[in-house]
Amino acid sequence: MNDYTKTIESELVSYLPMGDEYIKTLISSMNYSLTAGGKRVRPMLAIEFAKLCGGSEQAVMPFACAIEMIHTYSLIHDDLPCMDNDDLRRGKPTNHKVFGEAAALLGGSGLLTLAFKTVLSEKAVFLNGYEKCVKAGRLFAECAGVNGMLGGQIIDLESEEKEISVERLRVMDDKKTGALIKASCLAGCISAGADEEKMKAAESYAENIGIAFQIVDDILDVISDTATLGKTVGSDVQNNKSTYVSILGLDECRRLTNILTEAAINSLSVFKENTDALSEFAVYLRDRTK
Amino acid sequence: MNDYTKTIESELVSYLPMGDEYIKTLISSMNYSLTAGGKRVRPMLAIEFAKLCGGSEQAVMPFACAIEMIHTYSLIHDDLPCMDNDDLRRGKPTNHKVFGEAAALLGGSGLLTLAFKTVLSEKAVFLNGYEKCVKAGRLFAECAGVNGMLGGQIIDLESEEKEISVERLRVMDDKKTGALIKASCLAGCISAGADEEKMKAAESYAENIGIAFQIVDDILDVISDTATLGKTVGSDVQNNKSTYVSILGLDECRRLTNILTEAAINSLSVFKENTDALSEFAVYLRDRTK
Repeated sequence: MNDYTKTIESELVSYLPMGDEYIKTLISSMNYSLTAGGKRVRPMLAIEFAKLCGGSEQAVMPFACAIEMIHTYSLIHDDLPCMDNDDLRRGKPTNHKVFGEAAALLGGSGLLTLAFKTVLSEKAVFLNGYEKCVKAGRLFAECAGVNGMLGGQIIDLESEEKEISVERLRVMDDKKTGALIKASCLAGCISAGADEEKMKAAESYAENIGIAFQIVDDILDVISDTATLGKTVGSDVQNNKSTYVSILGLDECRRLTNILTEAAINSLSVFKENTDALSEFAVYLRDRTK
Repeated sequence: MNDYTKTIESELVSYLPMGDEYIKTLISSMNYSLTAGGKRVRPMLAIEFAKLCGGSEQAVMPFACAIEMIHTYSLIHDDLPCMDNDDLRRGKPTNHKVFGEAAALLGGSGLLTLAFKTVLSEKAVFLNGYEKCVKAGRLFAECAGVNGMLGGQIIDLESEEKEISVERLRVMDDKKTGALIKASCLAGCISAGADEEKMKAAESYAENIGIAFQIVDDILDVISDTATLGKTVGSDVQNNKSTYVSILGLDECRRLTNILTEAAINSLSVFKENTDALSEFAVYLRDRTK
């Protein structure tokens, strides 16, 4: 996959409002998490699909940045004490540890709101036209909303300390992480004006890598637990935390990620253009070591 | 002012997603606060300005409902323990008291996201066209964002236990409550396709009633404190809470609300149509008893 990280980083920051002296804390909170790194997977998917469908990197960029803002907002809020109560994110103190809970809450909401401002900005309209901006914004509102990310989060919270079925786990992950990955791929298609067949192919690719991504996450947790913490494979089960590995076992999970990755790559067959970057990305997600 | 409350209430609920069995708590949290009453001042302003500018009640309704969703989201989050930590809102337990902090956080974010979904919905586009939906959505993102509502909230939090200047109070209120009142009036103009002169008039009306609204709030707090709690007028000052009354005194505040209300009404002079409803509304805001 091509490396657009630098372009994405500088474009992301360009959308951050200056603000006056009164709201410095709020802008700092948003800036802290937005520039905290990460693989920028979602914007890259948007860019790759835009280019695959004949669109341009420049035109899809506001959509790509909006998705990363939504992703970042979700991380800030998920880390809050009333949610997962995490102190560290990517090796750095979480937002509320640095700016306090109130500024973290407001900063997260600021990024969600900024995402919609960005999709509907004059720049986005100049590059994509009104119709595509409405369609991208609507897509983001759906995937970030209660039938998407927010729904996945409430299922996750209500599943703590419970043994849950693989179906419930699947529904949770589809909403919690799958929805925004789907939005990323489809945003690229929308910017490029792709037809129905290509949108369907992008959706299928997204669904397959989305689940594979989550299963690999669960596998890596077990492996890194065993390697670094000396915990045994069964410790998640003892903690009553249901994961794909605890429900299906390590071997079945490995088999599934292979099948899903293959299915994702097969979804790309409708494209006559070169799909190597996206195929390699699916394989990279399967084989990553965290 | 005409009473659109019933129409607004039923339209508001129609945008709430059904959701599946897994996300019941989240939908209940959103529904609880969205149907908790309130005067629906913001949607009514949007409707009145739309009609004044030759638009229709039906077309502006998705915009009007989106504003009320944004307003409701801000109330849910403002009541959270890490913010104002309130147990009661409009005489009922606050959202987090009923559903817990996590569901209140997610429900609030759900309403903010639903607001953008509503402005960009197929229904909104059918009634207003793509361009107006983009412009309304962009306006809402600006007024609800860090240079609007969220900025006002951080200034408010950072002003606690401090004596602040009247300038800082003014900036805070302009952002915290003024911005969304402005968005309400302008959304009506956008839906109706009003020209620049009418937009400017609506903005001026909004700015004047926005500050008047806040000053009257401060006056009512003092009066109701004295009447119901036996507190003296000076108690806010002793609590180090700066208000218009504590800084300027009761008489100067009453004089100001008269001037601002008159200015709001004068802003309406550019309209050749009947502006009685909006004039009466400005007077009603000044003379209300909470």
